Formats: sequence, structure tokens, C-alpha cells
Amino acid sequence: MSNVAKAETVIVGGGLVGSLLALSLARKGEAVTVFERRPDMRKTTISAGRSINLAISERGLHALAQVGLQKEILQLTIPMRGRVIHPKSGELAFQRYGKDDSECIHSISRGELNKTLMTEAERTGRVRFQFETKAEAVDLHRRELSTNDGVTSRYERLYGTDGSASVVREAILREAQSEVNESFLDYGYKELHIAPGPGASFQLEKNALHIWPRGTFMLIALPNLDGSFTVTLFLPLEDKKDCPASFASLQTTVDVQRFFGEQFPDAVPLLENLTDTFFSNPTGRMVTVRCRPWNFEESALMLGDAAHAIVPFFGQGMNSGLEDVSLLMQDPVRRLGAFSAHRIPDANAIADLALDNFIEMRDKVGLPAFLLAKEVEKRLEATFSSEYLSRYRLVSFTRVPYRVALEVSSIQD
Amino acid sequence: MSNVAKAETVIVGGGLVGSLLALSLARKGEAVTVFERRPDMRKTTISAGRSINLAISERGLHALAQVGLQKEILQLTIPMRGRVIHPKSGELAFQRYGKDDSECIHSISRGELNKTLMTEAERTGRVRFQFETKAEAVDLHRRELSTNDGVTSRYERLYGTDGSASVVREAILREAQSEVNESFLDYGYKELHIAPGPGASFQLEKNALHIWPRGTFMLIALPNLDGSFTVTLFLPLEDKKDCPASFASLQTTVDVQRFFGEQFPDAVPLLENLTDTFFSNPTGRMVTVRCRPWNFEESALMLGDAAHAIVPFFGQGMNSGLEDVSLLMQDPVRRLGAFSAHRIPDANAIADLALDNFIEMRDKVGLPAFLLAKEVEKRLEATFSSEYLSRYRLVSFTRVPYRVALEVSSIQD
Repeated sequence: MSNVAKAETVIVGGGLVGSLLALSLARKGEAVTVFERRPDMRKTTISAGRSINLAISERGLHALAQVGLQKEILQLTIPMRGRVIHPKSGELAFQRYGKDDSECIHSISRGELNKTLMTEAERTGRVRFQFETKAEAVDLHRRELSTNDGVTSRYERLYGTDGSASVVREAILREAQSEVNESFLDYGYKELHIAPGPGASFQLEKNALHIWPRGTFMLIALPNLDGSFTVTLFLPLEDKKDCPASFASLQTTVDVQRFFGEQFPDAVPLLENLTDTFFSNPTGRMVTVRCRPWNFEESALMLGDAAHAIVPFFGQGMNSGLEDVSLLMQDPVRRLGAFSAHRIPDANAIADLALDNFIEMRDKVGLPAFLLAKEVEKRLEATFSSEYLSRYRLVSFTRVPYRVALEVSSIQD
Repeated sequence: MSNVAKAETVIVGGGLVGSLLALSLARKGEAVTVFERRPDMRKTTISAGRSINLAISERGLHALAQVGLQKEILQLTIPMRGRVIHPKSGELAFQRYGKDDSECIHSISRGELNKTLMTEAERTGRVRFQFETKAEAVDLHRRELSTNDGVTSRYERLYGTDGSASVVREAILREAQSEVNESFLDYGYKELHIAPGPGASFQLEKNALHIWPRGTFMLIALPNLDGSFTVTLFLPLEDKKDCPASFASLQTTVDVQRFFGEQFPDAVPLLENLTDTFFSNPTGRMVTVRCRPWNFEESALMLGDAAHAIVPFFGQGMNSGLEDVSLLMQDPVRRLGAFSAHRIPDANAIADLALDNFIEMRDKVGLPAFLLAKEVEKRLEATFSSEYLSRYRLVSFTRVPYRVALEVSSIQD
């Protein structure tokens, strides 16, 4: 056993939450080593898989403001003022998110945000990222982390920001009384791409999140700075009642072309190399993780997806993880047990809200193939009613605890 | 990729449930390969860790009867007709399990039962155990199992009987809609030993399960054929209100001697090398695992602890696993989806019942150190009332579905 570094603080996972945490701790004077299993994304191209862009809203922006990066990051984003609804045929409809243009969510590249946070963290002189190093085991009692390079490192405090399949979580939950619930959806997702138009123009309305809602499935698109859109199809993994296709049923290029042609006719001409991309990109899974406790005594804590992975239907996965960091840093004493106990109900609330949003979409009566645009609008207005929007507002445009947003929406229901 | 064997059926895990399953399938003409991560226990000594002896009752015995082994196995057991209660001071009390001597549970060596099942399975000529081979990953869609020898094997049907940290479970739950709940108790257990007396005599009543109930913790002892007893201490991992010790607080030989001397005075003279054994044996954890589904299409199924690990307080962990096999074999078609859907409610019911038994013991008001034997008896009669016993009878002496036993006891409550 050898000491990798004299760092008192070790972070497992250099994603968005881990990098922001490293930066925040360094700003408070701590020396931090971050173990990240992937290569340095500033030097290599990131492989496809995780979503390429995300929507950052008030909670995430506030966390960035706390480390003085909000302005810089906002310049990397595209404001989305509302949803553009794409019916099967007929006119597009616009659904504003907030009360006016001041309330919007922001499309941001996961990679660019992560790179910025890493570079800012390193710039403090107190953070060292050790890439291509995978955490393999944690001995919480000895405060030792073993990595796949055969090295064992001692730590004073360990943070697990290593995502939904967290190694740190596994270790923490094996101590004392614990409970973990992992629930996979029967839906998968697939990323597709709309290329920029001539002169880096946007081929769809730039300042919006585009949605093709189809009752039991949907397509969405978020704008990127280069004029492209990242498109995501959410579809059942296996055949399902009232759903014309599933990832299992789309086996050939003809299947895919027919399905997209019938369901998303206005998107088809824009989707770049649709069938090639469809078959070369992986089908992603969506999991909800709820667990307790998040800490081991005062020496280890998990945050972000490691502690509370949620489904993406409220756009709060990253936002809730960044908010974890800002709440933790607000507490000058940083008692891990108290933080864990206080934050878990909010994590469970946003997990519920995210699933509710999905079920709400999924359980709507399927739209017959010939349905007119007007009927689509009506259905969507029911879905996104004013009650719904106020819940949306509380979650996206305020920092009131998620549990309050859930309570408010329960009362309204 | 190479084929390890032409076996159509692969079992991961050659413990009690896996070995009985291999034997049962072979009796029906199937060729079976069993991958077991440990060495062949018939050739090497098993390391300590998992409980050395267990109580087999009606459900387990019936499963053995179905493969013609009940008589042979019963000769390896010691009938336990009831509990002998050891108060801190005063007389022992006897609590019969059944209506008469025909209703008893049987202490059996885990190792001897496992060895017999393995040897009987091999004797069919259709079962091959491959020891020291650990399953690492399953590709359910390709029906391929990768093991730590670098080999990938194809299968027609895969059974996961690989225990509470099952690799097969992990693979199955990553498919389609799934849910898993893993809950660790804040109690641990430690195995200790009472040696045989002179001439292989039993130093405690032979035909009983001995229990030293102390409100927030307890000690139990089960007889072995050689005159020894396997003793298990159940104690909180960390300090707890109303509990005079925890595994965390027992740090020195003096701590252990004092604790046992105060709490289990009649056991102390019998416990062999108490402090050495206490510090050299591991502290075991207890987990409840509930999940769904247990199957992937008609090609993979998990059984036993892999699907439904439970706490040991009803003596039904092994019995429920063996019953899984007997129920599966009763169905001539063996539709995995239907089996999974039908068996899960029973697995959840025995998980509840096992936890209830623990909570019932744990939540009793702690006994003051000076309490008289009479008061101990009174408390235990309340604990083990006739309603309780009828629940006990349904679970231990019948094969009515566990969910019925749970319903009956709920109504009685």
C-alpha cells in the first residue's frame, strides 16, 4: 500500500458533479485528488453514450454562480424559452416555459461544461485529476481507496460522484442500516442528430426545446451552439400495447425509416444519416436510484447520480447534482450525516416528479395516426396545464426544496 | 469465443439451491454445467463465513423428497423439537415448536447437505461442476456467459443461483422494466462454537434450538452431529439505545469477556476459545433482497438468495430456496415468466415474516440486567403466543404458500 497523493480529500468521478465539487473544495483551500475512469476529455473525443446536451436551469446556474462561473458558462448555452410541439401533421405549437423571456432553461453541452469545470478546478493549483483510473474498492473503516492501477490511497474524506453504478455507494450501503432501491424503466433512449443548415443556421427554431409527443413515446431535440440539434428518441424497449414500435421491433433500416416516416414526418428530412446513426448508437437505459444513508460517518459521502439517479423527464438530473454541491458548500461545518439526512427527502421528491412527468406522457391515450394538429394542441394543454406549469416553475426557476414542489403539486392534484 | 461445453443448461452457483436444481434437471434428462466460484468443498475445507448449520423444515424436506433424498439427508440431521430459553439467571424454559414430536425442525450441516447434493447430481452422469470459476458477465440477448477463466459459454437456458450478490440478477434487472430493493440490517452476526463434551456428548440439550434472548440482541445455538453446537451472536453493528454493546464497542478481549459474562453467564464456560474465535471470525451482514422480474424471457431465471435473500430469523432462507426448485420442477412446461410472477409474492411474504420476527425480538423492552427468570418466561410467552405459533406452524410444518401464512398472521394481529 502506498500513498498516491498527500491529498486529504479524494473524489471518485470527475463528471459534472465531481468537477464542480473539486473546484468548490479547492476554493475553500482543500487539496483534492479526483480519480476519473475515462481519459481526459480535453485531449480525446468523448465516446457517444451519455446525453450530449442538457438543460441547465436555476438550480444548476446558482451552483455555478457560487464558484463565479455563471456568466462564463451562460455564454456556452442556448436559451430555450419554451417547447415547440411537432404534431404528426399541421402547424407547430409553442408552449412558453416561464412567465416571460426571463424564465427560460438553457441548452448546454455536457462536454463543454465538464471541461470548463475541470480546467477551473486545476487552475486553483489544489486539484489533481488522475484520469483512466477506476475505483475498484473502498475500505471505509481504514479510509482506503483501491484503484485499478493497483494502488491503494488513504483519504481523510471521500466523495463518491461516480454515477448511477457508483462503487462508493456500494461500499457505503454495506455499512450499518441501509436501503437502496433501483428501478429501471421499460423505455430506452437513442441519440440522433440534426446537422446545421447552410452557414451554421438552425434548421428548427433555435430558442426552444422541440418535442414530438406521441402518447406512448416521443422524440425531443435540443439546440447546440454550432447550429445542430441533439435529438433523442424515447421508446419502449419491448413491444407494448398502444405503441406502434419498440427498440426490439425496429430491426431493419426499413423498419426505422417507416416508423420515423409515419411518426415524425417533419423530422425525417433533417435527421442526419438516420438509420446508420440509429443502429450505431447504443440504446440507453434509464434508472431511478434511491438510497439511504448517503454518508459513512464523517468520512465518506456520495452526491449526484451516485446517490440519486433520476429519469430525465424533468431536466433535473444535472441540476439536482450541482445543487447537492452548492448546498453542501453552504454549510460551513459540512456535517455529512446531517447533509445526507436533510437532502434525501428532496432527492426522493425530484425522483418522483421526474417519473410523474414520464408517466403523464406515457399514459396519455395514444394519438391515432391521422389526428389533427388542433387535437394535439388540446391534449398538450391538458398535459401542461397551469397547475403543471407552476410545478414546472418551482422546479426549474426557483430553488425551493424539491419536496415543497412535490407537496404543492400533490395538493393541486 | 469458444464453447465450454455442449450443455444446453448452465447454472451459476453450486450452493444448496444450485446443486439441487442441477440434480433435479438431470433427473429429467437435461445436461447441466454448474459454474461455482469456490473450490470443490469435497476436496478442501470450507472457509468460515456462512452459517455452518441450518434448520431444515417441511419445505426443504419436501424438495429433497422429490429427488428421493429425504431419508438419506434426515440421517445427517438432529431433530430440534423446540426452543430452550436461557435467561440470564434461573431455570431454562422449553418451548415446543409443534403440536408434538412429529413436528420438529432439523439441524443440518450446510456443507454435508451441499456435498450430498453435488455427488448425487454428478452420479446422474449429466451434471458437470466446474469449480473455481466465477461468472463475470451475462449477455442475455446473445445467451452468453463470461467467466473469469476468459471463456464465453453459450447456453439455451441459464439459472442464477449465485446468492445475494448475484451476477445473474444484475444482468436480468438491466433488461426492460425492473425493480430491486436491497436492505441491510443494522445488526451483524458472529459465529462461535461449543465443543463436544467427553465421549462426543452434548453439553446442552441435544434436541433443541437454544436461545438466549436479551431484548435488543440474542445468542442462539444449534446442535451438530459430533456433539458440538454452532453458536451465533446477533448484535447491533454500532452502539444503539437500550443495548449494552455493539460489534463496534467490543474491541478488546476484556470487552468480550465482560459482555458475555454479564449477558450469557451459562454459555461462557462452554464457548470454545471465545475471544480468539470472536476476533478471528468475520462479522456477517444480513440483507433482504426483493426484486422483479426473476426471469429474462424464457432463457434466464434466478432462484434462491439471488432472487430473494432474506434475514435468518424464521429459518426459511434455505427452505424457501429449495422450495423454489421443487415448485419449478412441478411445472412440466417450466415457463419462467409465469414462475417468476407467481413466486415473487411468496418470496416477498417470507421476507416480511423473517423481518417481523426480528423486529419482534428487537423491539421488546430490554430486560434489566437483574431480571428474574420468571419475568423472562413471561415475556417469551407473550412473544411466542399461540397466534405466533400457528404462524410458525404454517411456515415451518406446511407447504401452504408463504403469502397465505402472512395473511393469516396479519388477520391475527
